[in-house]
Amino acid sequence: MNSTPDTFPLRAPQSVASSTAPPACIMLTLEEVHDLSLRVLTHHGLSSAQAQAIARVITAGERDECHSHGIYRLLSCTRTLQHGAVVRDATPVVSDRGPGVVAVDAQFGFSQLAFEVGSKVLLEKVAKTGVAALVINNCYHFSALWPEVEALVEHGVAALAMTPSHSWVAPAGGRRPVFGTNPIAFGWPRVGAHPYVFDFATSAVARGEIELYRRSGRALPAGWGIDADGASSTDAATVLDQGAMLTFGGYKGSALSTMIELLAGPLIGDMTSSESRAKDDGAGAAPCHGELVLAFDPRFFSQGDFLEDRVRAEKLFEGITDQGARLPSQRRFAARERSLGNGCVQVPAALYYDVRQLLL
Amino acid sequence: MNSTPDTFPLRAPQSVASSTAPPACIMLTLEEVHDLSLRVLTHHGLSSAQAQAIARVITAGERDECHSHGIYRLLSCTRTLQHGAVVRDATPVVSDRGPGVVAVDAQFGFSQLAFEVGSKVLLEKVAKTGVAALVINNCYHFSALWPEVEALVEHGVAALAMTPSHSWVAPAGGRRPVFGTNPIAFGWPRVGAHPYVFDFATSAVARGEIELYRRSGRALPAGWGIDADGASSTDAATVLDQGAMLTFGGYKGSALSTMIELLAGPLIGDMTSSESRAKDDGAGAAPCHGELVLAFDPRFFSQGDFLEDRVRAEKLFEGITDQGARLPSQRRFAARERSLGNGCVQVPAALYYDVRQLLL
Repeated sequence: MNSTPDTFPLRAPQSVASSTAPPACIMLTLEEVHDLSLRVLTHHGLSSAQAQAIARVITAGERDECHSHGIYRLLSCTRTLQHGAVVRDATPVVSDRGPGVVAVDAQFGFSQLAFEVGSKVLLEKVAKTGVAALVINNCYHFSALWPEVEALVEHGVAALAMTPSHSWVAPAGGRRPVFGTNPIAFGWPRVGAHPYVFDFATSAVARGEIELYRRSGRALPAGWGIDADGASSTDAATVLDQGAMLTFGGYKGSALSTMIELLAGPLIGDMTSSESRAKDDGAGAAPCHGELVLAFDPRFFSQGDFLEDRVRAEKLFEGITDQGARLPSQRRFAARERSLGNGCVQVPAALYYDVRQLLL
Repeated sequence: MNSTPDTFPLRAPQSVASSTAPPACIMLTLEEVHDLSLRVLTHHGLSSAQAQAIARVITAGERDECHSHGIYRLLSCTRTLQHGAVVRDATPVVSDRGPGVVAVDAQFGFSQLAFEVGSKVLLEKVAKTGVAALVINNCYHFSALWPEVEALVEHGVAALAMTPSHSWVAPAGGRRPVFGTNPIAFGWPRVGAHPYVFDFATSAVARGEIELYRRSGRALPAGWGIDADGASSTDAATVLDQGAMLTFGGYKGSALSTMIELLAGPLIGDMTSSESRAKDDGAGAAPCHGELVLAFDPRFFSQGDFLEDRVRAEKLFEGITDQGARLPSQRRFAARERSLGNGCVQVPAALYYDVRQLLL
């Protein structure tokens, strides 16, 4: 892709829909998505290595029609860059902590490059030990975790990733925020199919979802948030500004969120969601903190033939899908096949122009 | 304790309450609980080593007023023994699978002895690698997981344990059982306090809880189960016999339960909940399957001083308890202090006599 901002290709007019619903969209190839992302990020001062790693993840988001993690993220990413504390040319530093643990100091750059560097060492370690951990420290983090567990699963391992965020979420029975939205993601290599992958926030919903309710003035569903007294609230502004979000699944979700704080916070010598939010001090940047990724090599765990075990795991998935229930990433993988088949993705025209503005 | 069944001590009459509510109780010392458990188990043919390991866990259950995991479990444990497939004198066999993985073949005995044998090796491994896994295969399992994570946390590591059970629980969006109640437990060593410990089923509630609703003829709360068509049901018999239980937390709990099936099932070459239930074939025995336990040594994970990190974790707990929210095992630890202070525990007289019947 050699296109410059001025000549950035727009598809034929028919790809731009009328101004009535659905919103006007343009078609971009995945190369164009990647190129646009790269140019925005380097325009804002990111080193080529940092920008490349982020552009790959953003392109994967658009490819999977996971739009909130596509080029939309360039808006919040550049806002985080304006915050000033991000080291734009950070070079991650790897340290070997032991046979089963590798740590990558992201040096206050973004998480993606640190993951790319660290995951190679993680895979080397897990092939020797059976189970291994990757610690990422001191990174700014704004992306989903599924691209990371998927990258590992491609090598035949199972993977689990988790990270705190900013403290917006109250513990079960409480009224003040302590936890972040604390996502957890898991991946399992399947036989002749896309991997089994989930990636969810341990908050009841994403914070961005509640923001959308605020903008549209709609009442929140019950169970999403509370007011400053800990009473259930359906008012988005109250939940976001005075009260707190809630975890999914009551006290069990709250316990899980605590575990994520501990394992991807104090265990790895990095910030909890409360500490990360205090450091941000209202700037609205992406959380600056750590992440924990675990990998499991099936060859060390089976008491028989690990390939037969993997075939047996397929019966579990069949038991779910045969009754019409979905697997977590099914919709995303269907979108991926569509995007790769079409060779391009649809992007809302308004979003596209907003992102183009970032090049000015 | 040299007491025989015939002379088994009863406390002074005032410890036996009147026949009106609360139910008549007797007081037992923890030694008496342990001794009674041991005698019941050996009376039913368990080897001394198998019985000792189980009696320790049952005594811990009574000590913590976790009554469903106290001597009450002797009733289901002996029922499982009558099933016949349990190897009463099984000696667990340890195999070293790699620097980070130890596996214990329970040889179709109960899980407790296999855990005791394997956890020693797990602790040796994690002290060398930073993260390590204990696999338990081919065990009958009926106990809570918190005694296991607590036993590990006493050695300064963080621990995570999980196991499938019998398939009674439908996936989100489904109508037929695929998952077990699939418990997950986590422990974290605290500074100058009981450890942080959670242990919960990934089903909305325990199966035993729904059994209690069936016996009393009460309607179930919404969200616990479905009928054979996948529609929400408040009828306990329908949920237990024709439909399915539900996971906690909707599709997120369902995803977590899938992960437990995979990691503590096919990953370790052992049975899923569906396979375990099929093997049981209606006998009503405890699940026969595997378990996965992970340990994390904080010394390998910190980027600074791991003891300072641990102090920092205390701020997370303060942030929860200072606003009046509970930590997961708080009630259990308060009961423990009470029991150890009193030197004895209360047991319903009717249960006590039912358990004594097991000695005939």
